[in-house]
Amino acid sequence: MASTMALEIIPLGGLGEIGMNLMVYGYGDKLLVVDCGLAFPNPDTPGVDLIIPDTQFLAENRDRIVGFVMTHGHEDHIGALPYIWPDLEGPIYGTAMTLGLLKGKFREHNLLNRVTMVQVNYRQAFQLGPFSIRYIQVTHSIVDSAALAITTPLGTILHTGDFKIDHTPVGGRPTDLHSLAHLGEEGVLALLSDSTNINRPGVTTSEQAITPVFETVFARARGLLLVATFSSNIERIQQIIRAAVVVGRKVVLNGRSMLANVAVARALGFLIIPPDTLVELRDMGRYPREGLLIISTGSQGEPNSSLVRIAAGDHREIVVQEGDMVVFSSKFIPGNERTIWSLINQFVRDGLEVIHEKNMPEIHVSGHAPQEDLKLMLALTKPKFFIPIHGEMRHLRSHCQLAVQMGVAPANGLVMENGDRALLEADALKIVGSVPHGRVFVDGKGVGDVGDIVLRDRLHLSEDGLVVVVLVVDKGSNQILQRPELLTRGVVYEDGSQGLLAEAKDAVENALALGPKALDFSDEEGAGPREIAQRALRRFFKKRLGRRPAVIPLVMEM
Amino acid sequence: MASTMALEIIPLGGLGEIGMNLMVYGYGDKLLVVDCGLAFPNPDTPGVDLIIPDTQFLAENRDRIVGFVMTHGHEDHIGALPYIWPDLEGPIYGTAMTLGLLKGKFREHNLLNRVTMVQVNYRQAFQLGPFSIRYIQVTHSIVDSAALAITTPLGTILHTGDFKIDHTPVGGRPTDLHSLAHLGEEGVLALLSDSTNINRPGVTTSEQAITPVFETVFARARGLLLVATFSSNIERIQQIIRAAVVVGRKVVLNGRSMLANVAVARALGFLIIPPDTLVELRDMGRYPREGLLIISTGSQGEPNSSLVRIAAGDHREIVVQEGDMVVFSSKFIPGNERTIWSLINQFVRDGLEVIHEKNMPEIHVSGHAPQEDLKLMLALTKPKFFIPIHGEMRHLRSHCQLAVQMGVAPANGLVMENGDRALLEADALKIVGSVPHGRVFVDGKGVGDVGDIVLRDRLHLSEDGLVVVVLVVDKGSNQILQRPELLTRGVVYEDGSQGLLAEAKDAVENALALGPKALDFSDEEGAGPREIAQRALRRFFKKRLGRRPAVIPLVMEM
Repeated sequence: MASTMALEIIPLGGLGEIGMNLMVYGYGDKLLVVDCGLAFPNPDTPGVDLIIPDTQFLAENRDRIVGFVMTHGHEDHIGALPYIWPDLEGPIYGTAMTLGLLKGKFREHNLLNRVTMVQVNYRQAFQLGPFSIRYIQVTHSIVDSAALAITTPLGTILHTGDFKIDHTPVGGRPTDLHSLAHLGEEGVLALLSDSTNINRPGVTTSEQAITPVFETVFARARGLLLVATFSSNIERIQQIIRAAVVVGRKVVLNGRSMLANVAVARALGFLIIPPDTLVELRDMGRYPREGLLIISTGSQGEPNSSLVRIAAGDHREIVVQEGDMVVFSSKFIPGNERTIWSLINQFVRDGLEVIHEKNMPEIHVSGHAPQEDLKLMLALTKPKFFIPIHGEMRHLRSHCQLAVQMGVAPANGLVMENGDRALLEADALKIVGSVPHGRVFVDGKGVGDVGDIVLRDRLHLSEDGLVVVVLVVDKGSNQILQRPELLTRGVVYEDGSQGLLAEAKDAVENALALGPKALDFSDEEGAGPREIAQRALRRFFKKRLGRRPAVIPLVMEM
Repeated sequence: MASTMALEIIPLGGLGEIGMNLMVYGYGDKLLVVDCGLAFPNPDTPGVDLIIPDTQFLAENRDRIVGFVMTHGHEDHIGALPYIWPDLEGPIYGTAMTLGLLKGKFREHNLLNRVTMVQVNYRQAFQLGPFSIRYIQVTHSIVDSAALAITTPLGTILHTGDFKIDHTPVGGRPTDLHSLAHLGEEGVLALLSDSTNINRPGVTTSEQAITPVFETVFARARGLLLVATFSSNIERIQQIIRAAVVVGRKVVLNGRSMLANVAVARALGFLIIPPDTLVELRDMGRYPREGLLIISTGSQGEPNSSLVRIAAGDHREIVVQEGDMVVFSSKFIPGNERTIWSLINQFVRDGLEVIHEKNMPEIHVSGHAPQEDLKLMLALTKPKFFIPIHGEMRHLRSHCQLAVQMGVAPANGLVMENGDRALLEADALKIVGSVPHGRVFVDGKGVGDVGDIVLRDRLHLSEDGLVVVVLVVDKGSNQILQRPELLTRGVVYEDGSQGLLAEAKDAVENALALGPKALDFSDEEGAGPREIAQRALRRFFKKRLGRRPAVIPLVMEM
């Protein structure tokens, strides 16, 4: 436990990666949890639905937790909470939009009646144990985002969450520079700041810069017009709807999360849709193609997403044709390039015009602060200590260098990784140890039962396939009673490989007849039919096919 | 068969994709094969080593083939030839460097003593059946690259291969603009042109522009200096070596293909290495770290590549440390971003400075012509007909639009796809049919035995894993003689799931006792123990885990 005059800083996710943000602050014997996000699977985690942070450390200290404070409503900041919260419990704090989205999640998990959610007001401090917390409005690609000023007797920490400095946001709620300036004057002991766009020079392009782009592009469309964007980007959706009205198109919302998020945002007043603008998907047929604009999810080319089905001609209501236009008002998220391009190629093949950030960069703006915005944050808050958050290692290192350029003492900038435990005192910040941390895989109904061993098996199966050999042996004599059965998946096409499989069975029978020595087993190894069959098949497939399938012997004793 | 006054154009690879280039031209009863490249696997083709074009069409017409002409030595243009050639045979034509690389491949495949390879000279026409072929020197990211002017009684086709227009290449061998100009004046019936960089505005940056960049960057390095680049980019390697000499570092070559390609290029005079410059990897220890520059393969973060092992600390000779520098003088090839960033993050984590095209774009130049170069090609050759090649559908469509802007009649521009069969006559170009085409997977020693079904199995296994259930039944009575055996991979961690697996066995036994009706089998389906066990397990895992593993029943009849 920390001394009473020190603050513990323990990131459990989001440092060294983009996603899965979870930061723990400790003072005295109390812990405050900031954000609780998920990460999406990648080719190294086949079959996994979601990835959440390992919260063993929190579970072991559940009685110390004073609350969960959420900076904003993106999946990589709140998505893991419904999975993690039942083991920990404790009140959840956030802005109206963030809680609106969280309530939907907790409802789906049947947890809504158990949880306490407290809506916070900007600038109004509230106390959680030793932590006095003020929410400070910031601009980001989701409305109602906040930085957190967290004050303890030691001093004030500013945790930015995700932010950019947009002076003219669509909804008229700019980053609260005045509160940041006040904090800087009062004294910020440590700044923990969003590193995502550290490698991008310049200042933020305002979300409003897209308005004229949309109006020009939409006016050019002649047939059906599809606009794909992130369903959480309410300001973007607002702009699409405004431009649709300008060009005289009705709006259709497509995608489950699009409908859900729009409903929450409208109910809270973050999204204004003029009357007679929305058309239900099922009523599309009543309008001419050139009178409709569809706002859709699926901008990342996610398999089974509605947009992928539209491109493949598998969508029931939405059918595209030559002369239609598709606009991707979204980022090519790193790792998704291949699926996005594949989707775009399909639309292009069918004669559609496709607009995206690679052929028209002004069709999207980022939600994260580039270098000059990051400098402004450092200049306003004048922190004594600095810890970069929300980024891969290369982002964190660069951001730390920037902080030093901006006047943070070199010894006062600290690059941390998930699981590090840092101790912040009035005059020192250093890593003093580590806590359990890692990734937990959600697969179907299972949380955590698919671990690294299961994933390694899946990857091995996908690379090399599997051979199962069944031996029926006499319990007493160990004699083989029947010709071995062989089953393969992912190795060869069985219907076309009967000869090869018969040879493989011969190889097993021969090996069993020759005994362990012939396969280089030593006497000490005491190899039985199971081991002999396995080694014989491994060698057979290596020699004949140059492949290394997983070979699994099953012995049935009769 | 085509009429004697028409030319057949049949792409078997490379159209609608980047990679696997193979074009067939037919005149009368003769076929000419231009390039024979491979593609690299992606997450949709797990375990596959290489992908080559399906050449069933060529095999069925092998007696019509007059020869294989190669434009240049990149894998996506020559890499499939050793796999495809044995079934087809016929002489192979190419420039010195291209044949130098091909010979290495044919030697590895034990084919060198069977094959006829003919080295061609630029500008000197040679006749293959009805085709008169002239090689025209072009600049590209591999030396000794060529465009092909293919003349038949119908007229001349210009097949550009991969090219850019670099007026000051490192080796002093610029694109032969004069030959292209002559062709344009004589009359080009059809141009088939490289579309890779159609979406990039402007003109080529010369390869030589990198010289001062290297000198400045290398001069800044204080510790060990690693430079990763493509082993086929001989001009780049030449520049790295020149800059190494300027900054006073000895050069170490690292990676199998780096050593092989450098040997070929030196033997042919394409690469000049001053005496006392090269140091063997095993002798590295004799030199101070700051006196060495390592040129390495692995710039794409390929698993098991030497560079990945260096980053992981698993390389025997090369150990990096804080203060060293890594330079990626290479492209982030689409699809490889994730592995490249992961490699970079590892180096950054260990305190190395890492330079790459995302933080210093001038550290690499592309080998493909951007828009203004493509216009120059169209302007010089003034083709009557135009077919874009070497690109995804979005590239091909854009390039066709550019050709029309440059004066090609809209009806004379044709976007083709793999397997299309187009007929070119003096006044018409149209698609008239299709031929068999597709992808063939090379996996270990097998070529083509891993097909779509095996891949589907591999992907299913990797997503959901596999359950094998073994039933021992009495041959006569169909009675179960033993408790079922269950084996899983990639579903759950077996050691921690014994209870669950016992329940699964119970579910099978119960289902078998209750009979087919209880599982909604109709009488007509005649479900036996195999079908009952399979359906029972599918339902069990769906209900308990929300997962859909492949369930494979194996029935042993005693």
